[in-house]
Amino acid sequence: MCGAIGVFDSGVGGLSVWREVRALLPDESTIYFADQAHIPYGPRPPVELAHYATSITNLLIELGAKIIVVACNTASGAALETLRATYPTVPFVGMEPAVKPAVEHTRSGVVGVLATPTTFEGVLFRRLVDRFGKDVTIHTQVCPGLVELVEAGHTASAETRELLAGCLAPLLDLGIDQLVLGCTHYPFASTIIADIAGPHVSIIDPAPAVARQVKRLLGAADPTNRPPPPALHAFLTSGSPTRLASQVDQLLGYECQPEGVFWRDNVLRIG
Amino acid sequence: MCGAIGVFDSGVGGLSVWREVRALLPDESTIYFADQAHIPYGPRPPVELAHYATSITNLLIELGAKIIVVACNTASGAALETLRATYPTVPFVGMEPAVKPAVEHTRSGVVGVLATPTTFEGVLFRRLVDRFGKDVTIHTQVCPGLVELVEAGHTASAETRELLAGCLAPLLDLGIDQLVLGCTHYPFASTIIADIAGPHVSIIDPAPAVARQVKRLLGAADPTNRPPPPALHAFLTSGSPTRLASQVDQLLGYECQPEGVFWRDNVLRIG
Repeated sequence: MCGAIGVFDSGVGGLSVWREVRALLPDESTIYFADQAHIPYGPRPPVELAHYATSITNLLIELGAKIIVVACNTASGAALETLRATYPTVPFVGMEPAVKPAVEHTRSGVVGVLATPTTFEGVLFRRLVDRFGKDVTIHTQVCPGLVELVEAGHTASAETRELLAGCLAPLLDLGIDQLVLGCTHYPFASTIIADIAGPHVSIIDPAPAVARQVKRLLGAADPTNRPPPPALHAFLTSGSPTRLASQVDQLLGYECQPEGVFWRDNVLRIG
Repeated sequence: MCGAIGVFDSGVGGLSVWREVRALLPDESTIYFADQAHIPYGPRPPVELAHYATSITNLLIELGAKIIVVACNTASGAALETLRATYPTVPFVGMEPAVKPAVEHTRSGVVGVLATPTTFEGVLFRRLVDRFGKDVTIHTQVCPGLVELVEAGHTASAETRELLAGCLAPLLDLGIDQLVLGCTHYPFASTIIADIAGPHVSIIDPAPAVARQVKRLLGAADPTNRPPPPALHAFLTSGSPTRLASQVDQLLGYECQPEGVFWRDNVLRIG
């Protein structure tokens, strides 16, 4: 999958970004990673999320990704700076709540943002509010359980409708006319959200803008400018990696450890 | 691992080829695959081996391999033609018993070849004998159990010595002065083999010639000449692939099946 677009999220939320990327760039290959062993990301500390994001990015790059889309607002807030520092030659596109277009389009002067607590607590969101929240009122709202419901496939169930009605009511009472979806899982419930919010509230999903940014960065990338990567050697087995590690050590004199968070069942690496 | 040299074998035998490739091409990355779930290849029917070889090649190409070394005589005999037909733009290097140099160097006119039954039964070996066996006598010899002993790390044990002494005795009695190692596992037992065969028998390991062939093909490859591959989309999860498959179907409308012999625990693909 050389030259693929790598996309990851805690689960299937990032697929709402993936589909926009695919629609805009139909000739590009993609690798999507859902970190469903660690979902939900929302309640996890940023340092843990940065660790997962780095492991996933490492895997995606080894699989051939030329650009990484962090299709998760929580992970973007927690890990984007770490990722850019760790992989300075790799272009990254992260998610942030689309506060700017909401502020530009509001007529009521009241904007609502629906996201996870970690997103609201992060520096990325605070910067957005500082930058764009001067002349309008920005109300934040969490919706605990919505990520899990979307993961469970309840994108249009009565349970999801009830949860969303409760979460959206305070924002609607405050007079919002723009609702920013600040988590990539939420667009999959957008039919219900639009139904509850009514026709006077615009629902803003940043995914199309993210896809355009991916296209821009790919156009700007100069692959000739990159230094050749150092030689890397991977040993894979359809049997036991622990056994292969000891065999490689015995037969070739290379000490290598079964490693890699996600490939641990079939990969060994030596630098 | 874009542009890596892919190398595979039923087990660790191909590492005897890998080390020569690495020594000759130290700046190249490599991906080694040991199909230890299906070892030994020797007793398996060619059609089954061709199936494994195709699956492994597919994986190696997806992981970024630009050239494939079938570092297994048995698999080369059974699958090389299928592989070349299936992947016409990918360069392949296979193994064949080094009958030619043995015939060129023999003074006694008697050459021995040590390999698996499948290798001796294959068309590749028969062609070699037809081509180079006119003026010399070529004796074949199998050595059941040697692959398993090398896999178990018994490259210099009393058990291995006893087995090899039994296998080599008929060839030595026939007056060979060239012994072709026709299985990539055997070079790891070459110290014992040389010890049993004595100083008048040359032991021929084709691995260095295979590494030179890899270098030649890499030099001759013209990447600009290849058509761009069709877009491919992979979905990976650290959780349940069956669940992700149904989620992708539900959320995006793509039917995809957990598939791939080796990645089945964490990959889904759609074409």
